[in-house]
Amino acid sequence: MSIFEKARELAVINSSAAVIGWDQETYLPSDAAKYRADQLAWLSSRAHELATSDAWKADLEAAEAADAGTDFKHTANLRELRREFDRATKLTVELVARDSVASSLAKHAWADARERSDFSRFAPHLETLLGIAREKADLWGYRDEPYDALLEGYERATSTAAVAALFDAMRPSARETAAKAVENSRSHAPSLPPGPYPVAAQQRFNSQVAESIGFDFDAGRIDTTTHPFCTTLGPRDIRLTTRYMESDFTSSLFGVLHEAGHGLYEQGLPAEDFGLPSGNAVSLGIHESQSRLWENHVGRSREFWEKWYPAAQESFPQLAGFPLEKFLRYLWRAEFSPIRVEADEATYDLHILLRFGIERQMMNGSLAVADVPNAWNEGFRELFGFAPEDDRHGCLQDIHWSMGGLGYFATYTLGNINSAQLFAAARKDPSVASAIQQADYRPLLGWLRKSVHAYGSTLDPAKLIEQATGSAPSTADYLAHLQSRYL
Amino acid sequence: MSIFEKARELAVINSSAAVIGWDQETYLPSDAAKYRADQLAWLSSRAHELATSDAWKADLEAAEAADAGTDFKHTANLRELRREFDRATKLTVELVARDSVASSLAKHAWADARERSDFSRFAPHLETLLGIAREKADLWGYRDEPYDALLEGYERATSTAAVAALFDAMRPSARETAAKAVENSRSHAPSLPPGPYPVAAQQRFNSQVAESIGFDFDAGRIDTTTHPFCTTLGPRDIRLTTRYMESDFTSSLFGVLHEAGHGLYEQGLPAEDFGLPSGNAVSLGIHESQSRLWENHVGRSREFWEKWYPAAQESFPQLAGFPLEKFLRYLWRAEFSPIRVEADEATYDLHILLRFGIERQMMNGSLAVADVPNAWNEGFRELFGFAPEDDRHGCLQDIHWSMGGLGYFATYTLGNINSAQLFAAARKDPSVASAIQQADYRPLLGWLRKSVHAYGSTLDPAKLIEQATGSAPSTADYLAHLQSRYL
Repeated sequence: MSIFEKARELAVINSSAAVIGWDQETYLPSDAAKYRADQLAWLSSRAHELATSDAWKADLEAAEAADAGTDFKHTANLRELRREFDRATKLTVELVARDSVASSLAKHAWADARERSDFSRFAPHLETLLGIAREKADLWGYRDEPYDALLEGYERATSTAAVAALFDAMRPSARETAAKAVENSRSHAPSLPPGPYPVAAQQRFNSQVAESIGFDFDAGRIDTTTHPFCTTLGPRDIRLTTRYMESDFTSSLFGVLHEAGHGLYEQGLPAEDFGLPSGNAVSLGIHESQSRLWENHVGRSREFWEKWYPAAQESFPQLAGFPLEKFLRYLWRAEFSPIRVEADEATYDLHILLRFGIERQMMNGSLAVADVPNAWNEGFRELFGFAPEDDRHGCLQDIHWSMGGLGYFATYTLGNINSAQLFAAARKDPSVASAIQQADYRPLLGWLRKSVHAYGSTLDPAKLIEQATGSAPSTADYLAHLQSRYL
Repeated sequence: MSIFEKARELAVINSSAAVIGWDQETYLPSDAAKYRADQLAWLSSRAHELATSDAWKADLEAAEAADAGTDFKHTANLRELRREFDRATKLTVELVARDSVASSLAKHAWADARERSDFSRFAPHLETLLGIAREKADLWGYRDEPYDALLEGYERATSTAAVAALFDAMRPSARETAAKAVENSRSHAPSLPPGPYPVAAQQRFNSQVAESIGFDFDAGRIDTTTHPFCTTLGPRDIRLTTRYMESDFTSSLFGVLHEAGHGLYEQGLPAEDFGLPSGNAVSLGIHESQSRLWENHVGRSREFWEKWYPAAQESFPQLAGFPLEKFLRYLWRAEFSPIRVEADEATYDLHILLRFGIERQMMNGSLAVADVPNAWNEGFRELFGFAPEDDRHGCLQDIHWSMGGLGYFATYTLGNINSAQLFAAARKDPSVASAIQQADYRPLLGWLRKSVHAYGSTLDPAKLIEQATGSAPSTADYLAHLQSRYL
């Protein structure tokens, strides 16, 4: 079996686990959770076994040796398989096992610490996980600082310095825009007419919208979960989920638009290469650019609602006396929340800038774990103008660190930055721009398919952005977008 | 890893495939079918590899050698693992592959032949499959006739002669009861008040009923499919499905009662032994006894509807002027259909008697494939008094033969026979009987748990029936039941 056949077999295993994981989140009876974990563990062991096997290594080496370098995609596939293999095999079995135990303990301790708003209960676990993260970074290797090696796991071929440069560039403007947006909102943002917005009507409306932006229901579905997500169960099987509030139909709708953005990317990847790097999404920062593009640049735009608001008013009669202008102001409301997952478009990135800085300092050893709450509160006050009431609403709010997910947060804001740069570039095409005026998004999707989706992960994220937009990743379009919408 | 650990691992693989198979039937997007088949094939290869491996054989032999025979369950588990291993390994790889290709071709040919009602298009495939079935029977071995070896796959430790004796014993009475039931029905059976019976109201009503008979929704669900089924995704994860007709709420309800009967059996098996013979259902004939018991002996009984009809009338207002007595006559209606899957309780077994006779003769070589349509039509006329209009409504109606499923049909009627015998035995317990009068089925379920479910497959089916009821399998209770309901 060649390395490509092996990679396809690995995708069969991983996508089987994805089916089982999807069912776990959507339809699993309560008593079935324990055995379900056994099923997932078995599949994950088989996947690990295969992807780190001697046979895998030998086949990869043989293919590398035979590669004449004349076929771009072939060579890119081998390069990425090598990158993944090295990353998977550089860690020792002992370290992987220790990491797994530590994360498992940390997750429980974090939940407990958050519940009690008592950071000291989580601190020793965070200390352990940081130590493990540093050990991993040493084994993986890095250029400038250990945090590079963590970022690489989510956003390959970037560097902490490059991300910091982007984030530093946007900080003053992002803070100013957010503050003004919040101030405007206080005086101007109306409330949505009261519910109930019946779930069945929301589902019908959401499906129409998802279909109109190009989500293919012959190759996907929308189901209901506590937290919206998108998962890929096969090359033509992309599952979205959302959640419903009867008091506000926009909650489920923006869940669908966000996840459909991920789903359109997955549906746009070359299906015939499913399981090969050329058929896989390239990074979290690019993935998030797709979800944010459809959620914010499309779904929160005036053009979109000029088309869809009449349909919404038909679906939800209480909107009849609520004019479009008021509805748009409702959509564009902004407020300072201490909680990231409740943040709106105008304030979201401030949460990320804070976390990125703290993670980087922790990894570099310039911030001691014991000082995290203080650093958090000070940093938060600087950005938002007030401090969270307690650590539960501060440094204990997110699950990421307890899962060893250091380096992940940055990809949310990278996604925002990329989304604006891609959207601006797409609109330079006159046919894309004029269709967008009519809320016809087929040309936009066509542009994304050809400029982003078609490449799978054969180009590094920054290179992909540069090729698609004509310039290296930059915050200019994103800041301009925020200013034009919120100022 | 001991043989028991291996058997549990096999169950993890097979139940993972069951999750993926369940999703395929319930929620799969249309374009996803092809890749889904790859996922199922991969899991099924892993299961086959494990269950026929040298390591499996060695562990089984080691456990057999070490068995002192003092622990009934332990010894039974080894005996059944041996039976399964021998059955799986006696066939040659070449034969299994040839069988798989032949069935695949036969399924297409059968669909085509049925569509055109042209038996000659299917005949050569049936000939091939019969040849393969005889080869398999020779490799598996049998006592009296090759058909024994096929039956063994569905109803272990029984014989063609034993099944034939039961079927012969019931034939005259079953035919007479059916004919009279159909005659009565023609003059007396009313129509159900017209629909729509809204699907949401059906779902609520069905769930209440399923819960009241003991189906545990913490360890199971009901979803919607074209054909109702029950499948086990884990020791505490039993999924039922049904289908909805807006014109008749009883269609989905009896689907649920039937499948919940299977599900109660699965939920009643010892969960801690999941994957071991002691934690698995014993046979199709016993499984079907559970579904038929809840569907027919409980769900079509007067006591059941004395309790549930008021609730049905509340759920479906059109039943308000339709008295219970009329509703019961509607439920007990009987008619002669040429199609097995449309048959009612009173006429169902005649379809099975016909198929069993024809299969047995085909396997023994006393009926040539070319003569099957004629034999079918003659046999049908003898039992039903008329011949099917064409082969599509005759010998081409069922998919079973095209899948190589010779020997399967008998288990439907064995299930009916067993259901009546078990139900009669349970009612000899006064607390069970008096609760049934009040439509309280908890004592009945308790009796089934202790007399049937708790044994898993540690007892052969006939032995299980004998131990539970005090006598060997017999048609007496079943015929008495049919006569008392339909004459």
